[in-house]
Amino acid sequence: MDVSVDIAALFAGLALSEGEPLYRAIAAILRQKIEDGSLAFATRLPPSRELAGILKVDRSTIARAYEELISEGLIVSHVGRGTFVAKKRVQSPGWSARYSAYGQELSQVMSELPVSLSPRSVDLISFAGGLPVADSYPQEEFSEILFELAESGATPLFDFSPASGEPLLRELVIKHLAERGMPVQDSELIILSGSQQGIDLMSSMFIDPGDTVVMEEPSYFWAISNFRARGANLLGVPIDDQGINIKALEAVLSQKKVKFIYLMPTGQNPTGITMSAERRVAVLELCSKFGVPIFEDDFAGDLDYEGGLPSLKALASASEKLNQMVVYQGTFSKALAPGIRLGWLVAPQAVAERLNFAKRGSDLSTSSLNQEILARFLSRGSYLKHLVRVRALYKERRDTMLKALSSAFAKTKVTFTNPRGGLFIYLTLPEHMDAQRFLDEFAQRSGVSFAPSRHCYVNEPALNTMRLSFIQNSPERIEEGVVRLNLAYQDFERVLVRESGRSRNGSYENSPETVLI
Amino acid sequence: MDVSVDIAALFAGLALSEGEPLYRAIAAILRQKIEDGSLAFATRLPPSRELAGILKVDRSTIARAYEELISEGLIVSHVGRGTFVAKKRVQSPGWSARYSAYGQELSQVMSELPVSLSPRSVDLISFAGGLPVADSYPQEEFSEILFELAESGATPLFDFSPASGEPLLRELVIKHLAERGMPVQDSELIILSGSQQGIDLMSSMFIDPGDTVVMEEPSYFWAISNFRARGANLLGVPIDDQGINIKALEAVLSQKKVKFIYLMPTGQNPTGITMSAERRVAVLELCSKFGVPIFEDDFAGDLDYEGGLPSLKALASASEKLNQMVVYQGTFSKALAPGIRLGWLVAPQAVAERLNFAKRGSDLSTSSLNQEILARFLSRGSYLKHLVRVRALYKERRDTMLKALSSAFAKTKVTFTNPRGGLFIYLTLPEHMDAQRFLDEFAQRSGVSFAPSRHCYVNEPALNTMRLSFIQNSPERIEEGVVRLNLAYQDFERVLVRESGRSRNGSYENSPETVLI
Repeated sequence: MDVSVDIAALFAGLALSEGEPLYRAIAAILRQKIEDGSLAFATRLPPSRELAGILKVDRSTIARAYEELISEGLIVSHVGRGTFVAKKRVQSPGWSARYSAYGQELSQVMSELPVSLSPRSVDLISFAGGLPVADSYPQEEFSEILFELAESGATPLFDFSPASGEPLLRELVIKHLAERGMPVQDSELIILSGSQQGIDLMSSMFIDPGDTVVMEEPSYFWAISNFRARGANLLGVPIDDQGINIKALEAVLSQKKVKFIYLMPTGQNPTGITMSAERRVAVLELCSKFGVPIFEDDFAGDLDYEGGLPSLKALASASEKLNQMVVYQGTFSKALAPGIRLGWLVAPQAVAERLNFAKRGSDLSTSSLNQEILARFLSRGSYLKHLVRVRALYKERRDTMLKALSSAFAKTKVTFTNPRGGLFIYLTLPEHMDAQRFLDEFAQRSGVSFAPSRHCYVNEPALNTMRLSFIQNSPERIEEGVVRLNLAYQDFERVLVRESGRSRNGSYENSPETVLI
Repeated sequence: MDVSVDIAALFAGLALSEGEPLYRAIAAILRQKIEDGSLAFATRLPPSRELAGILKVDRSTIARAYEELISEGLIVSHVGRGTFVAKKRVQSPGWSARYSAYGQELSQVMSELPVSLSPRSVDLISFAGGLPVADSYPQEEFSEILFELAESGATPLFDFSPASGEPLLRELVIKHLAERGMPVQDSELIILSGSQQGIDLMSSMFIDPGDTVVMEEPSYFWAISNFRARGANLLGVPIDDQGINIKALEAVLSQKKVKFIYLMPTGQNPTGITMSAERRVAVLELCSKFGVPIFEDDFAGDLDYEGGLPSLKALASASEKLNQMVVYQGTFSKALAPGIRLGWLVAPQAVAERLNFAKRGSDLSTSSLNQEILARFLSRGSYLKHLVRVRALYKERRDTMLKALSSAFAKTKVTFTNPRGGLFIYLTLPEHMDAQRFLDEFAQRSGVSFAPSRHCYVNEPALNTMRLSFIQNSPERIEEGVVRLNLAYQDFERVLVRESGRSRNGSYENSPETVLI
């Protein structure tokens, strides 16, 4: 059915509500017209280019409005045929027409992620995950602690815990931070249900739609998505092998009003880069000069293999004024075990108090049981012993992977970072090679996987980049995985050469080169 | 220092940003002028009445702006002397000037809560808490399960869990819901880190500033505060002994565009009222008629002492259309143990998928260990046995408290609800008696406590109301607690009589009555 509709008339009442992006206003009008029957089932909508012309807006705005309605099932798009109303008049719009700006923005960000991976080979060597795996957990000690708890009677383990955490665990975390050069007052600390919660609390307490947040480029996907969903305008500042570029950062801070700077100084995710001591000092000087606070996500702070660079927070603690400018968080998910779901956040007292309101609003309380297990583990002194062990383990794995990569990719234009801490090596393919395609069509079939990094960019993504985790496999498996990666790379290269032949000369099969074979 | 400042000139540039409340715009200007030095340290600000006159706004708007700056430490107020700039020029405003609308609104809501209780007597009988206590937990079974886990090797317990929950637990929760008359598809379910998380996810995914949300009046404080912090316009609909008032609800729905209705049909918090079967049907009919979806918080659904009213979700499941209109959540915190931090949320598939995005943004994953413990408990069939036990236990406690209250307050104007489910009895004092004052000055000194309910109102609070939890104490302690409550009440009454004498006749000591004694 191809119904002629006076499309311009539909938009006669187009008016932007406070803070509403244009594409949403356009989608809302179309949604309403579909729901009230003005746009009947199977009505053909004008192509995005045409509607953009009628409304005098950018074509991408229309495309985004259409995408939103497609994701809601209200319209469908058939390549070559056009875009059609897919739904009959709806009496009760229900939940799907009611998402908040946050809800819509988050869904938009998340829907851009690849939905599913190709079928995995049985013997896949995964370099994809950003987490430790079981072979590094302190398994015996965890079991011992579970026995202790079972024997001591489990009652308090299932009681409600104060929102900001169990007193004993708080004390032990403060001790751990003191040992890392950070004197922290009890009133400045919040125990988190994992460090994603810290990102969410900071995001909700500080970001209004339109606020500018500065991040390293590339940065952590789950921070990008959270900040973006709250309407932040994200500015990515390039990172080199010493950390964030100071000149670029200064240029941004001198031009823009910035809400805060989100930084991962040690073992940055996804690049694995650790900020040098000089850069750390320079970043704090800029923060002081421009009065812009820093949210330091030190997720890999306990995994520095060359021995303890001070965190920004530790450096800032020398000056009362600077110390007030840094909110600092860390986690037990990376150096200990991801399932423990515990992290910490340190903020100036007045800020910590308010973040704790948001923590209560978010989940009221963190599991007492997990806090008790971690407190027992810490109070035995086991965490420091564990860190010595896993640092040695992960350092060896890092060195193995670096050596294997150097040898496998010696004769290629592939480059990769040389991390001093954390979990990741960042690998850059030659510019014409798409990392997602490399994964989907070549690497997984060769039995190896990694994390393409396109979703870690806030500006233009570098499609040829990928993150390799070096902590999840034994040295032998790492070596085998890199061999597979190299074989897949060679396949990919060959196919690209063939394809470039095709695209230069029309069909590959009919090109002069092949008919002569 | 009393500096004369052309206050009107300061506000020359006053302009409201999109969605910004007036008081915040006024506070922002004052903040900026303090920070840039235009308003110097110790400058006296005009009284709120005067500034309200100058700016032609309501006095309460100025009062709220001042309160905000006081809470930030930028100004101070001395009774009788006035309001002064408390801070010298600040070079770097830091975090405190950067809170989001959410952050400011949440802080405002939370700062209205009483900060600390009076010193507790050693032998306090508390009716205040909304949670079960250790004497009702299945302690032996919890210990057994911890032994099993310790023996089986703890490894998977510390692994990362999928955002929407462990498959085995999901299966068992679906089975539990099916037994309660709710057929739920796997794709409709999210395992929550406690049901506050469900409130937070729904709030962030659906509420934009200015949206109208309908609630029972009074309602759950942590839902009110969360919705309000996101800028919702809350409408309270009165509740009677059969549940929400249908005529009042219909009037609201026919006049207002409503985002959703938040309801607690069983053992409503704080009133303890359970919605009758007729009301449940009527609510669903209204929801269908007006096309307004329902967020059903069935936190006490497993604690119906008179045997299983169907949830709204169960009733809705007969109609595909209605079924799509109800998002349903429940928790193991009330009927099992609060420290387990696990609940469930059921939504139409497309909505569940998006809520799961928000769940990942909020905490990535819920503790594997707690999920494994609960799954083992459920798969033994122990939860149903436990429910039989605690229902009998709590029913006896409820009956004991009702009987004790009836006898203690027989000759007073005190009234209270008669709950068929849940945890709470709601008590209403005579209108002139303030429940917070009753707690602070009388009840706690007599060794008994409860939860005043003023913060549970979205409109005008009923200051004379309070919530009594009947599940936290043995029958003997309940009887003793009610005796104490009655003694405190008599004290309070006597003091009020004396005070009313004073206020009628000037000072009590000098009144004709007393000088004649």
